[in-house]
Amino acid sequence: MKIAFDARLEGAERADWWRALTDALPDDDWIDPAAEGTQSARWREADIAVVANPLPGRLAHCTRLKLIQSLWAGVDRLLADATLPARVPIARMVDPMMNRAMAETAMWAVLSLHRRAFDYAAQQRQTRWRALPQRRADEVAVLVLGLGQMGRTTALQLAALGYRVSGWSARAQAVDGVETHAGWASLPAVLGAADIVVNLLPLTDDTRGLFDRTRLAQMRAGASLVNLARGAHVVEKDLLVALNTNHLAHAVLDVFDSEPLPATHVFWFHPHVTVWPHAAAQTDLRSAAAVVAANVEAVRRGEPPSHLVDRSRGY
Amino acid sequence: MKIAFDARLEGAERADWWRALTDALPDDDWIDPAAEGTQSARWREADIAVVANPLPGRLAHCTRLKLIQSLWAGVDRLLADATLPARVPIARMVDPMMNRAMAETAMWAVLSLHRRAFDYAAQQRQTRWRALPQRRADEVAVLVLGLGQMGRTTALQLAALGYRVSGWSARAQAVDGVETHAGWASLPAVLGAADIVVNLLPLTDDTRGLFDRTRLAQMRAGASLVNLARGAHVVEKDLLVALNTNHLAHAVLDVFDSEPLPATHVFWFHPHVTVWPHAAAQTDLRSAAAVVAANVEAVRRGEPPSHLVDRSRGY
Repeated sequence: MKIAFDARLEGAERADWWRALTDALPDDDWIDPAAEGTQSARWREADIAVVANPLPGRLAHCTRLKLIQSLWAGVDRLLADATLPARVPIARMVDPMMNRAMAETAMWAVLSLHRRAFDYAAQQRQTRWRALPQRRADEVAVLVLGLGQMGRTTALQLAALGYRVSGWSARAQAVDGVETHAGWASLPAVLGAADIVVNLLPLTDDTRGLFDRTRLAQMRAGASLVNLARGAHVVEKDLLVALNTNHLAHAVLDVFDSEPLPATHVFWFHPHVTVWPHAAAQTDLRSAAAVVAANVEAVRRGEPPSHLVDRSRGY
Repeated sequence: MKIAFDARLEGAERADWWRALTDALPDDDWIDPAAEGTQSARWREADIAVVANPLPGRLAHCTRLKLIQSLWAGVDRLLADATLPARVPIARMVDPMMNRAMAETAMWAVLSLHRRAFDYAAQQRQTRWRALPQRRADEVAVLVLGLGQMGRTTALQLAALGYRVSGWSARAQAVDGVETHAGWASLPAVLGAADIVVNLLPLTDDTRGLFDRTRLAQMRAGASLVNLARGAHVVEKDLLVALNTNHLAHAVLDVFDSEPLPATHVFWFHPHVTVWPHAAAQTDLRSAAAVVAANVEAVRRGEPPSHLVDRSRGY
């Protein structure tokens, strides 16, 4: 099959992806728009597009597509392209290695908050020696927002560490051994019961700007926010007020309204903000290439691909 | 029974322990040397001494002791008292909550090193946005030194997170699902195969100064050391050289030769040293008091207490 590869990636990272994908599907006919252009006959005849945030409009030329396969888990930027052919199914990346990486980052953030690692780091900068009170994990209520693949993996791993874990999602989702809640009406009470809130929601019209003044006020005083999903979930100026008034204790942020986070942004310098450079869960080349290959094989056999996006939901 | 309580603790912490212990054993006759002195007839007649690093010589007056119960897991400072009555059994604190706290700190340190949290903290101070390469947990070799209660719990938890975990102890110990090694002859090869070394050994004549120039040189280039046991396990000036020559990448240290760590000590200021104030695993009052009560009941019934120290081994 003809497979178009359109990834807004640069240099070595782009080359690594190209090699991993073509190694995983060596007998297919790969089309690199960087080499062939997007006006070529081959581009227009592509059967499958494997993409990472392609420039809007480029896939509109591909009239024979049977599948658009995203290399990334979040497809909000992809779906923002209004010219995307409406009849072509879109698959998200659901990579077990990426789920594990996300759960690791969430565990790191929760352990850091629970065991006061950010406070000890501040004390080190002040050469201050003082052991802080130690709580048991089962005294710490952790809320995971979003119970997709990443949210489920994260909730299960946190529960295995002994935390009092609950989960929330817009529509009901069961997770073995984890108390789950569903629907917008339940969110204020669920938020108010958590010491640590881990956001793993998809970015949709419903969740954009979710953590505004009102929602942040619904959080328990002294609680902390861990945002590993999208910067646009959080109204940054409202979060800043919540931190500066000591309503919230700390924020661990991997994602921001504007990325890279501008050098003049106060989050870089805030004593109660931990900044990561959108690195909570990088896609693992090898396992992601295998996931792409499995979906290409499904199309080849005429079977439905996995992890299809529901455009009306937005994820 | 008459129970002497001799803890080198101050203020609220001492009062909290007194209350937790006397609540757990309300019908026994508790003796507080701070109130009654150590020259009183009641002190000399104590059946059991519950102690936390008592001043050397004080227990020599207690001639009827059937058990010395330590509130702390490490008994190296207790055993250094040469006047300790030789025939009296000594029990260490083995508190399941403390084991879990230690495993949490070890997981936090390993996740921080594996997922580059210390590097991202340094980048935040430089307002630098750069995602660093992400390894899978099964590509990271973690060695746990010491396979007592804390080492076993830690090794099992790290293995559950997907790390390539091995364990080492002076004498052979099996841990389900973890590759274990024993004996001093095997240590150089075991050390040389690890990316992260977590020290949970007891402090004995054999392990004092273990991480000296020779041992540190046996560690893999670019590896990191996590010392959660005793400061005296590490020759601090040799560790400093290993860090300054970039042989080791990072050290996470909870314990030091001199505690509190002196304000002028270079470890406070070193970019590749993380300092915690001996807070990796604080004894949990409630569960520790229950452990003490169980051992007191054993003595009362004439049964052997649990977790007795072998003075010839030193732990």
